[in-house]
Amino acid sequence: VLTKKEKVVIVHGASVVRDEMAEKLGRKMQTITSPSGITSVFTNEKAIEVMLMVYAGLVNKQIVATLLAQGVKAVGLSGVDGKLWQARWKKDLYVKEGSKVKLLRNSLTGRVEKVNKELLMLLLKKSYTPVLCPPALSWENKIVNTDNDWAAAVVAGTLKIRKMVVLFEAPGFLREVSVETSLIPKIKREELSEFMQYAAGRMKKKVLGAKKALEMGVEEIYFGDGRIENPVTRALGGKGTVIK
Amino acid sequence: VLTKKEKVVIVHGASVVRDEMAEKLGRKMQTITSPSGITSVFTNEKAIEVMLMVYAGLVNKQIVATLLAQGVKAVGLSGVDGKLWQARWKKDLYVKEGSKVKLLRNSLTGRVEKVNKELLMLLLKKSYTPVLCPPALSWENKIVNTDNDWAAAVVAGTLKIRKMVVLFEAPGFLREVSVETSLIPKIKREELSEFMQYAAGRMKKKVLGAKKALEMGVEEIYFGDGRIENPVTRALGGKGTVIK
Repeated sequence: VLTKKEKVVIVHGASVVRDEMAEKLGRKMQTITSPSGITSVFTNEKAIEVMLMVYAGLVNKQIVATLLAQGVKAVGLSGVDGKLWQARWKKDLYVKEGSKVKLLRNSLTGRVEKVNKELLMLLLKKSYTPVLCPPALSWENKIVNTDNDWAAAVVAGTLKIRKMVVLFEAPGFLREVSVETSLIPKIKREELSEFMQYAAGRMKKKVLGAKKALEMGVEEIYFGDGRIENPVTRALGGKGTVIK
Repeated sequence: VLTKKEKVVIVHGASVVRDEMAEKLGRKMQTITSPSGITSVFTNEKAIEVMLMVYAGLVNKQIVATLLAQGVKAVGLSGVDGKLWQARWKKDLYVKEGSKVKLLRNSLTGRVEKVNKELLMLLLKKSYTPVLCPPALSWENKIVNTDNDWAAAVVAGTLKIRKMVVLFEAPGFLREVSVETSLIPKIKREELSEFMQYAAGRMKKKVLGAKKALEMGVEEIYFGDGRIENPVTRALGGKGTVIK
């Protein structure tokens, strides 16, 4: 689907490879849960190093090389490069531990607030396909981990992108997690919040990202299965969950 | 010295961090020596992964973030991105082992032959400072390790850069390796080949890179100490070895 006619921006994660590599390096990531039930990894200096290595280094360049071999003029950038993703640093985090809420200090995470539109447009105008990944850069110039789905929404909104495809390891948004037949085929944009109750684990972030994208002007969002052949075409063809 | 008036391209390595990380991952790099006595690391699939992680991920983005914090609009790219460094794949390598010469097969190394000038000019024209590092991409779209000094020479030549500064962990080109007072202050371009006899270890590659740069039209090359304050200003001020 990456035809040379359309302008495409790719945002990717790499959490599986990240966790593998972190374990090999003896830097196992610590999972934390926010008071609203959203899980993420706690990011300190050592974890940021692993992220830089796996996201911006290994996986980003492997995706870029694969696309280049297919004739797509891919250029990989992290959110750090040219202040592509500027984020508000969330230094102190409230986390739920059992029934308690604790304050975790010195977290290197942030939420993307601004995208370097000039840099992306510079590449897109010359038919390059930007391949983007975390981490981001805070307003204080700290390298911070950031939520990919939120960042992708801000990218899409900033570039006035109409369609956003979100791929993951499931057929789409499932009413019951791990029951693949419980796929929700369509969600009206004004009803998205009501579906939050069905979102489990990482799907919560994807729904929040979709909400942000809609707010920022994206018209259609496609959740689809990233494990199958031609995942983007299939998702756009309505095989997953369509939000519009 | 990175004033905002001049157009600057930075090319960096990361061999120390690479070796540390390779060791931590249980993927210790194997050093090989060419028949002409030039040492490098043998690069297989696992070694390329470490290179991607350390060069294109960790170190590249740390340099970019440091420059951004100083007001330089840095953008980090590997030789893979947008086919920035296209290389001839050297799959089979002759290596010296003691007094024998052996053929090593399936090496993932290459020599940079072409630079994506369009992509670099695109960034430079908008006052971005490209921060470049290995690996490169072969003509067959394989990610390959490549000699940095050679690549930097081809970048400088392609962009018609007049001055090239090469920094390393020594005061300059030494007549006797590890004798810091044996610095060679000046070399005439036509005499560079004669000085090859004094080049030990990695300095051999730097001299070959300098020769390539001169061939490609670079006018002045400065070898300098990367361990000191203001290393570029000092090198340009003639504190190291000046080749012109």
